[in-house]
Amino acid sequence: MQRCGALWALGTVYRYARRVYGRALCSATWPQGKVDRFGGVSVRLLPSEHREEASFKSWLRGKYAVRRWKEEGRTAVWLHIPITLSGLITYAAMEGFHFHHAENDTSTLTLWLKEGPSRLPGFATHQVGVAGAVLDEDTGRVLVVQDKNKTLNAWKFPGGLSDPGEDIGATAVREVLEETGIKSEFKSLLSIRQQHNHPGAFGKSDMYIICRLKPLSYSINFCPHECLKCEWMDLQELAYTSHTTPITSRIAKLLFYGYKEGFHNIDLPVKTLPAVYSGLFYSLYHKELPAFYEAKTDLQ
Amino acid sequence: MQRCGALWALGTVYRYARRVYGRALCSATWPQGKVDRFGGVSVRLLPSEHREEASFKSWLRGKYAVRRWKEEGRTAVWLHIPITLSGLITYAAMEGFHFHHAENDTSTLTLWLKEGPSRLPGFATHQVGVAGAVLDEDTGRVLVVQDKNKTLNAWKFPGGLSDPGEDIGATAVREVLEETGIKSEFKSLLSIRQQHNHPGAFGKSDMYIICRLKPLSYSINFCPHECLKCEWMDLQELAYTSHTTPITSRIAKLLFYGYKEGFHNIDLPVKTLPAVYSGLFYSLYHKELPAFYEAKTDLQ
Repeated sequence: MQRCGALWALGTVYRYARRVYGRALCSATWPQGKVDRFGGVSVRLLPSEHREEASFKSWLRGKYAVRRWKEEGRTAVWLHIPITLSGLITYAAMEGFHFHHAENDTSTLTLWLKEGPSRLPGFATHQVGVAGAVLDEDTGRVLVVQDKNKTLNAWKFPGGLSDPGEDIGATAVREVLEETGIKSEFKSLLSIRQQHNHPGAFGKSDMYIICRLKPLSYSINFCPHECLKCEWMDLQELAYTSHTTPITSRIAKLLFYGYKEGFHNIDLPVKTLPAVYSGLFYSLYHKELPAFYEAKTDLQ
Repeated sequence: MQRCGALWALGTVYRYARRVYGRALCSATWPQGKVDRFGGVSVRLLPSEHREEASFKSWLRGKYAVRRWKEEGRTAVWLHIPITLSGLITYAAMEGFHFHHAENDTSTLTLWLKEGPSRLPGFATHQVGVAGAVLDEDTGRVLVVQDKNKTLNAWKFPGGLSDPGEDIGATAVREVLEETGIKSEFKSLLSIRQQHNHPGAFGKSDMYIICRLKPLSYSINFCPHECLKCEWMDLQELAYTSHTTPITSRIAKLLFYGYKEGFHNIDLPVKTLPAVYSGLFYSLYHKELPAFYEAKTDLQ
């Protein structure tokens, strides 16, 4: 009886230890996940750990991952996986995960846990391109280029894609300098174009913004890799020539209108304001607000 | 001698066959890649094929993949991998590939083959949010909401993120309807805000656009999941109250100016134009171009 009792006790201890150890093993090997303010769980895997695919698979299928988060009423799971552990993605896909986005050395997958279609926010949907209309007000001439390797040799304003984190005006000034050698400064935003399913944007949308710039230098030194031609062209000529794109023609007409009757008619100047929550700053563009309307704030 | 010669011949045939078969095996198992107009090679793997990781690894390291494309002077490699074959990504990373982007069930990796830093275009950099300032011109009242779950109970215009492929005006109208139950139509674009490292945009940039809308219905039926309050507020009161965000206050002042002195002072109406190459259409926003300046085209 004693030996039997000891054996029973041993068995109990063993089973208990296995359960505790098993849980500890799971929580040690695979992170618990952090709950965000929208009720989602975020799990960030580290390149130096979490290497075993079989263990990942059983953890994700087991009771300490998706099943538990569902029981806890979480809305979704975000899984951040370093590129070197990409073998794990296949197993996440088997559990219903999809790519949310990926960049450089990390991919992010999501799984929506609630009823109905996912209400998670998507990733960035637009690329932003900026062109600069550099107008020499003394001569009425504007800086134009013809792109290399195009079937149509149309005059257009120099410009290109924004770098990540780059302000609209900064892109215009940089692209003008890179393409034409002309230094300039930002004056205003003139126009925005939105185009979807853009061939050059991996099927995403394209936001193309044209700015009015003021030249700070005048001697052209254009980039032969990007441009076929570059010159200072009479603005009125550009506005009414057929050797240009429809958008360049239209903005040249608008700029000509501003040149003749005052830029306040066409300009959206920029104002920098502090963001409420983040402490960062943002750039706001709109028609000039007359002092009278702005100043009324002070009365209150 | 004869037997020796036969053996030699057999050996030659065998080595030749192995070379031909080996090459055929490689080209049959792993796609050759398509060359794009920028000199890059694009390789699209299929979920139904290309399953063997060891074979992928030796193909990518061997002389029929990266090494050959380098010899051929290609600029870069684009690798499109279905999510079920994500195990292959790890081997691509070992050869220097990085994620360009990923979405739903596919990831795209790139490897720059030329000297210096990659000159490949990046993926989308901005999310786009749109708010609608719905002004009832008869009463001078504007539709405002207070968001649920915010620390500051500030009045603001209803709005939200654009769906993929959705026009700016369409987002404004949809979001206003979803949040407040008010039907409206797009009149003009009023303002653009650009903000980088946006906390709600996965570190990407945020473009926030405010539109002027005209109400088509007046009876509020707001969404209790999104809004705490919703009402028609006197525009002048909104413009000069402190119970609002800096951007709402500023755009309310601008809208008040337009209401008092004519919307032509503040509006960027939309025009739809055909794209030169794709045959698709795009939306262009800028200050109204007077007929005189537009009409001059006809003279040429």
